[in-house]
Amino acid sequence: MALDWTTSKQGLAAKELRPRRTLPGDWIPAQVGDLLRDVDTPALIVDLDKCESNMAKLMAAVEGTQVRVRPHAKTHKCVELARRQIAAGAVGVCCQKLGEAEAMLAGHVSDVLITNEIVGESKLRRLARVARAYAPARLGVCIDSPEIARQLATICRAEQVVLDVYVEIDVGQNRGGIAEPRAAAAMARMLQDTSVFRFRGLHAYAGLAQHRRGVPERRAAAEAAALRAAQARDAILAVNVPCEVVTGGGTGTFAYDVRSGVYTEVQPGSYIFMDADYARNEQDAHGPQFEVALFVLATVMSLREDRATLDAGLKAFSTDTGPARPTFPGWRVRNVSDEHTVLMRADDATPIRLGDKALLVPGHCDPTVNLHEWLVATRKGRVEAVWPIEGRGRIY
Amino acid sequence: MALDWTTSKQGLAAKELRPRRTLPGDWIPAQVGDLLRDVDTPALIVDLDKCESNMAKLMAAVEGTQVRVRPHAKTHKCVELARRQIAAGAVGVCCQKLGEAEAMLAGHVSDVLITNEIVGESKLRRLARVARAYAPARLGVCIDSPEIARQLATICRAEQVVLDVYVEIDVGQNRGGIAEPRAAAAMARMLQDTSVFRFRGLHAYAGLAQHRRGVPERRAAAEAAALRAAQARDAILAVNVPCEVVTGGGTGTFAYDVRSGVYTEVQPGSYIFMDADYARNEQDAHGPQFEVALFVLATVMSLREDRATLDAGLKAFSTDTGPARPTFPGWRVRNVSDEHTVLMRADDATPIRLGDKALLVPGHCDPTVNLHEWLVATRKGRVEAVWPIEGRGRIY
Repeated sequence: MALDWTTSKQGLAAKELRPRRTLPGDWIPAQVGDLLRDVDTPALIVDLDKCESNMAKLMAAVEGTQVRVRPHAKTHKCVELARRQIAAGAVGVCCQKLGEAEAMLAGHVSDVLITNEIVGESKLRRLARVARAYAPARLGVCIDSPEIARQLATICRAEQVVLDVYVEIDVGQNRGGIAEPRAAAAMARMLQDTSVFRFRGLHAYAGLAQHRRGVPERRAAAEAAALRAAQARDAILAVNVPCEVVTGGGTGTFAYDVRSGVYTEVQPGSYIFMDADYARNEQDAHGPQFEVALFVLATVMSLREDRATLDAGLKAFSTDTGPARPTFPGWRVRNVSDEHTVLMRADDATPIRLGDKALLVPGHCDPTVNLHEWLVATRKGRVEAVWPIEGRGRIY
Repeated sequence: MALDWTTSKQGLAAKELRPRRTLPGDWIPAQVGDLLRDVDTPALIVDLDKCESNMAKLMAAVEGTQVRVRPHAKTHKCVELARRQIAAGAVGVCCQKLGEAEAMLAGHVSDVLITNEIVGESKLRRLARVARAYAPARLGVCIDSPEIARQLATICRAEQVVLDVYVEIDVGQNRGGIAEPRAAAAMARMLQDTSVFRFRGLHAYAGLAQHRRGVPERRAAAEAAALRAAQARDAILAVNVPCEVVTGGGTGTFAYDVRSGVYTEVQPGSYIFMDADYARNEQDAHGPQFEVALFVLATVMSLREDRATLDAGLKAFSTDTGPARPTFPGWRVRNVSDEHTVLMRADDATPIRLGDKALLVPGHCDPTVNLHEWLVATRKGRVEAVWPIEGRGRIY
């Protein structure tokens, strides 16, 4: 999907952009019906049996409760998977960025919550215009500052848009959100009194709790977050503002959040794919056992007695939680560079030949997906579909 | 540049792909003439004064020698910068992947060397077809295996293409390449005797040497690599095969490589931008003093007394060599998550307000550039051009 552009001697004036395809053919890693070993590399692979099983386990885990499921699309960034999540019972999706939300709305996903603040005149205006362009689809956004609320209200009036808004509260992440319950209540009051806003409730995400390794610590962190969310909700109700929604929770804590009596909606994202980092969490025997469904497929491009070099590195998988992990025994990652991963052999290693394909489990699924244009969906070793990752790179 | 696609209920069959723009407007972070503070975020920024100065310093450093400069385009992936490097005296560019090479050739860069092996029937065929489609532009590739050489020769015959080929040798990276001089000579002999190949010489890149922090260690590592390259070259000459080119070297070692008497061509890439990791290298007082020219621009999206949260994280800059570094005093990075960087204030910190723009120096330039669609070129705080990053994501 590389484009060529008409450029002037001085480079390219933004207003003169004229995209034009010039490459001999857009690359696509696979065709439907291909065997996994024939997929071109590096490619991002989803095992559909495992992915569908993860989706079913999530819905089973909330069955019989009043808690709604709004999966986080920042994990997969893929319209087809968002549609499947909704078909399985989700009420809509979360996005982290306006650009992602645009991709989902353009794909006819009709209920999107941006679980993040948006700041700056031009981006707030874009938010209002996107909401108007896709109405009656619902688009919600988080606010944690009166200053931004006033600015957004002025823009919504000018653009003649009514927006769903949520107060983000800080339940221990110390990244965004309002920490003090009475300040959250004042913020909610202000949003409720603004005619171009529909105040919906609280966004309360305990990001750090998701990766507490032990079950008791993770449960305790989730319960502490739910308590803070309850305090903010009660402060809002005390000033006579309805607080219909308390939304939050991730793959690591959603089972506790569902039982908290506080959260009305949960937002797990990674459960659909899992990754090497989440696999380090001790699993709660009482919760769903999600399986790794996401892989990077690489090719052995150079081989010696004790070393195999793969054609996928930092630009094919994120390493912020460590390198991707080989799925075959006896090989360990010695080094990752931009376009290579070097594996070292142990004595009892799986034999490898030049040109062999290797499946790796990414360390961290979200930023890994962000590196790929296509998601190759396989079942029992054969390609069933190839989906564009529409939200890929839409970090703005 | 998100696209919508016609999908069936079962997802998308690869052959049915029909891209169609549906978003209200393609996002572009800036318009020519904008002030830096009006650029939308997260955005990738190049300071043109510093970038041009880096380019000039590189060419000055090789002036008066016979050594040619072939900068590595995997750093910038941007056709406009490749053209400027060539206008400044470079003979062409290097790429690391066939997809990158296609982007450069499509942008009328007429001499491209893929400094890497290509493996697998389908990709080798694509290589041959790309070479034919863009002839008479030159396209070279590295080979370190007789098996791949035979396979590529068969394909080149079928496709009626003659390719430039280089033997990659291992000069200490232990990632790819042939380590033993006589094996390299046998490989060269085989390539020389294949009618569809033009054997050009050796690719000898000492990647690990680039980041040795101290000058003496770095120089010693470069000299050791040059010695190994000389041994392979001499072994090739000893079997009566001409070895015109010895190409290699990076930003950390090129000054030594130029003086080695072995390298005929150097391939620095990062010098054009620099990054926080290269800035940790002790600078050689006798070599060019490159300056940081690449930044990620972020917006302060949430603010408290002691903490500022930015709207750029793992998906806006690579963290494989550490987080991006703020360019303003008194703030340190506490945490980076997918879409956020949290800064903590020291007592003497620069004052920050909600909505302020913040410039950060990426830890590692190449994978950071890979995350962005656009490069915003600024001079003295004003946008002079906005360039597409055509090679972005072309890891295949």
